[in-house]
Amino acid sequence: MLITRKVEFSASHCLSSAELSDAENLAFYGPASNPNGHGHNYIVEVTVSGTPDRVTGMVMDLKELKDILNREVLEPFDHRFLNHEVSPFQRVIPTAENIAVEIWRRLAPEVNRASAKLHAIRLWETADLYVDYYGESAS
Amino acid sequence: MLITRKVEFSASHCLSSAELSDAENLAFYGPASNPNGHGHNYIVEVTVSGTPDRVTGMVMDLKELKDILNREVLEPFDHRFLNHEVSPFQRVIPTAENIAVEIWRRLAPEVNRASAKLHAIRLWETADLYVDYYGESAS
Amino acid sequence: MLITRKVEFSASHCLSSAELSDAENLAFYGPASNPNGHGHNYIVEVTVSGTPDRVTGMVMDLKELKDILNREVLEPFDHRFLNHEVSPFQRVIPTAENIAVEIWRRLAPEVNRASAKLHAIRLWETADLYVDYYGESAS
Amino acid sequence: MLITRKVEFSASHCLSSAELSDAENLAFYGPASNPNGHGHNYIVEVTVSGTPDRVTGMVMDLKELKDILNREVLEPFDHRFLNHEVSPFQRVIPTAENIAVEIWRRLAPEVNRASAKLHAIRLWETADLYVDYYGESAS
Amino acid sequence: MLITRKVEFSASHCLSSAELSDAENLAFYGPASNPNGHGHNYIVEVTVSGTPDRVTGMVMDLKELKDILNREVLEPFDHRFLNHEVSPFQRVIPTAENIAVEIWRRLAPEVNRASAKLHAIRLWETADLYVDYYGESAS
Amino acid sequence: MLITRKVEFSASHCLSSAELSDAENLAFYGPASNPNGHGHNYIVEVTVSGTPDRVTGMVMDLKELKDILNREVLEPFDHRFLNHEVSPFQRVIPTAENIAVEIWRRLAPEVNRASAKLHAIRLWETADLYVDYYGESAS
Repeated sequence: MLITRKVEFSASHCLSSAELSDAENLAFYGPASNPNGHGHNYIVEVTVSGTPDRVTGMVMDLKELKDILNREVLEPFDHRFLNHEVSPFQRVIPTAENIAVEIWRRLAPEVNRASAKLHAIRLWETADLYVDYYGESAS
Repeated sequence: MLITRKVEFSASHCLSSAELSDAENLAFYGPASNPNGHGHNYIVEVTVSGTPDRVTGMVMDLKELKDILNREVLEPFDHRFLNHEVSPFQRVIPTAENIAVEIWRRLAPEVNRASAKLHAIRLWETADLYVDYYGESAS
Repeated sequence: MLITRKVEFSASHCLSSAELSDAENLAFYGPASNPNGHGHNYIVEVTVSGTPDRVTGMVMDLKELKDILNREVLEPFDHRFLNHEVSPFQRVIPTAENIAVEIWRRLAPEVNRASAKLHAIRLWETADLYVDYYGESAS
Repeated sequence: MLITRKVEFSASHCLSSAELSDAENLAFYGPASNPNGHGHNYIVEVTVSGTPDRVTGMVMDLKELKDILNREVLEPFDHRFLNHEVSPFQRVIPTAENIAVEIWRRLAPEVNRASAKLHAIRLWETADLYVDYYGESAS
Repeated sequence: MLITRKVEFSASHCLSSAELSDAENLAFYGPASNPNGHGHNYIVEVTVSGTPDRVTGMVMDLKELKDILNREVLEPFDHRFLNHEVSPFQRVIPTAENIAVEIWRRLAPEVNRASAKLHAIRLWETADLYVDYYGESAS
Repeated sequence: MLITRKVEFSASHCLSSAELSDAENLAFYGPASNPNGHGHNYIVEVTVSGTPDRVTGMVMDLKELKDILNREVLEPFDHRFLNHEVSPFQRVIPTAENIAVEIWRRLAPEVNRASAKLHAIRLWETADLYVDYYGESAS
């Protein structure tokens, strides 16, 4: 049984690689390489797996999941310029792929300490583009 | 090949466990433990698997699937207070998890009698919360 | 200039008129007349009008609007059986029309005390049905 | 890691099998067997799998994916009567299932020539009906 | 007080004017001028105005509105090639604008015969394009 | 008759007034006052009014409208930090209200030069917040 909660944050990012020239960055990332940044309303779907508890009928205490999401994702990411203010995006390019990996890295120990297990992160960057990450073993 | 049909029903539920005190129920479920109930527009996504028929090009007769969904889910669940009017929720807490299991239990024999196989139930309780159930063997 | 904020609450209601017989209620409201109630995820769009403030660039302080919506709508309506727990629905049938009027009645003095003016209430009962109310003078 | 892009096209189709009589087609497909055709805004979700590139942080060059989708799906399918104008639907019934298989067949060699691998095609025919196809080995 | 119900139908159309040459039609309408047609999942939002009935709390009997929509819009338009099968589109180009006018023309007498008044037709042709029509006096 | 087209752009902004102290900006705008900026997927609904042309059946040439939107809104706003890169937001706070006014100011002369008339700008900043602007005479 899987249960998924959606949350949303607004952030800026800029896509350019330190290993590429400005011209290469512009050619590859297009206007997304603008160093001033641009932003998105990111939607995160966090999926945890488990068996419904015999007494409560729930896979996980949803208030606990909400607290974890607020503390580990919304507070650090919301209203931030990811490249400048959120680790490790000073040195890791904040593509949707890398943001999903980082959200997984922050959530997995917290969710797994509860009775459930982190199963997947889906990150929507726009209404037409999303990534799914299932952790290292499944990559 | 998977094919999924979405249907919607409106129902009430109340979340409280007979094995917990009133104070424990309020602490765990919050306002959802209100015994008068509260409600949702539940969205059910029913996914069946199969191979498209060589003649019809379809995994399953969609009219037959629609009839099954009407008879097994919409008629018994729609416009009901689940805890009082829909079995087994007099004794099983109607969390999203348990409702999904019950919908699976009702649909699986009917879908499997047709040429397809029930693959998954996704139940949305709100726009931000859904569960996925794949049957016992996959739980 | 209009600005609109959407909020959501989950509640139960039952549609039956004290002035109609049970048979008449069933004939008119169908399964929505079930006295045990059924529920919805109601979405409220609250629209206020005003001129953007010269200094802040905003029609209204959005934190103040959020506080008003929490206090006047979400706290009293969310997770409630409207007919039994929210005034005046003990005696007024909680149709979408009447809920919208009541939300207007509760919000108008609070919004108008701020620098803005309540312009409209849109209430979605399901994804396929909504009402718009513009206050008495416009009815 | 999976990445998914959504695109949309508008097309007509008619569902009727050359191996069934007119009466059988009408009985099985209902009004969808109308030979004049009817149409949909089809939404295609194309999912590719891969590992984010160490330098670019991306599973696949999204401009390249966009070019492939335009060339292989949108240009041939958009604003067409599928049964008359898009191969192989002169002889294969353009059900959602068969359209998904054909989109897979057209995209797989192009995506796989890039650094990624085609993982899934989700095709929405209406807001309530979609199919998922994972290629032959997974069927 | 306004109340709005959404319904959906799937149909084909072709945009070309008898008063323009083939080249002019192609230049103006682009691929939408394809004589084989292409299709959409049209969404119609029908808005009626009125005062909630003192006894029922409703602007209009929703079952009656549903019956009118089924009879006047869904039955004649759904699964049809509008230019060939639905009057007056043999001679009137079925643009979103003209379809909305025709839906108004068919619904107004039926809605106005009930206790309400037709207020607006919103017709979505795609997720990014819609028209609003308020009847002749407001055009 | 009104016709509305939706377009989307991704941009960053920062909300802080030169006439307020840092503490006042933080108190009023909250985390949105972060000078590094944060971002949104802005959705713009541009509504034009007119009478369908007798020959084409359309209020306005949609290709022309699309060209105007690309040139006047998407090219200058998409992937930009509004406060630093888009006039007049170096000196005008880019609240949703002020962005809508600026989009109106840029579009009105272009739309009105065609056969139609700009009627409204709806700007969604998030899925829960939007503003509507009808031009100065209607403000």
